[in-house]
Amino acid sequence: MPKFMDVHRGMKGLTADQLMEAHRADLAIEKDENVHFEHAWADPESGIVYCLSEAPSADAVQRIHERAGHRADEVHQVTLEA
Amino acid sequence: MPKFMDVHRGMKGLTADQLMEAHRADLAIEKDENVHFEHAWADPESGIVYCLSEAPSADAVQRIHERAGHRADEVHQVTLEA
Repeated sequence: MPKFMDVHRGMKGLTADQLMEAHRADLAIEKDENVHFEHAWADPESGIVYCLSEAPSADAVQRIHERAGHRADEVHQVTLEA
Repeated sequence: MPKFMDVHRGMKGLTADQLMEAHRADLAIEKDENVHFEHAWADPESGIVYCLSEAPSADAVQRIHERAGHRADEVHQVTLEA
């Protein structure tokens, strides 16, 4: 299954609870698109959130994020890992 | 130990071998700055590489990347995870 890294900007001041709630909102509906969000990392100071997922396509990742209320600014398929 | 996500741009056409070699170059000297690069993900189509690390500071991350020959375009401390 392809892997994706997506990026959300403009999240300055994000709290641990808000990140957890947003991640849970993704997890609650991700099966509808055969997506799995593996991990999220956030820098509340610059307002950036990175999400790593497995999914059939970038569009599937974006559809889940949109329905969960937080459209990603970028979704990149990461075809290489080290 | 604080965690960091750093981003390299302009890496269009990066190959698996090149990513592995760059990652190995970081690993070979990371102890000098008490940094550990845990994982790297790359999208050769858009030319973006994401590196996840543990380090004492963003400057320490950048010093290792610079010495290894690939300065990061952004280094963000990721204080939240989900």
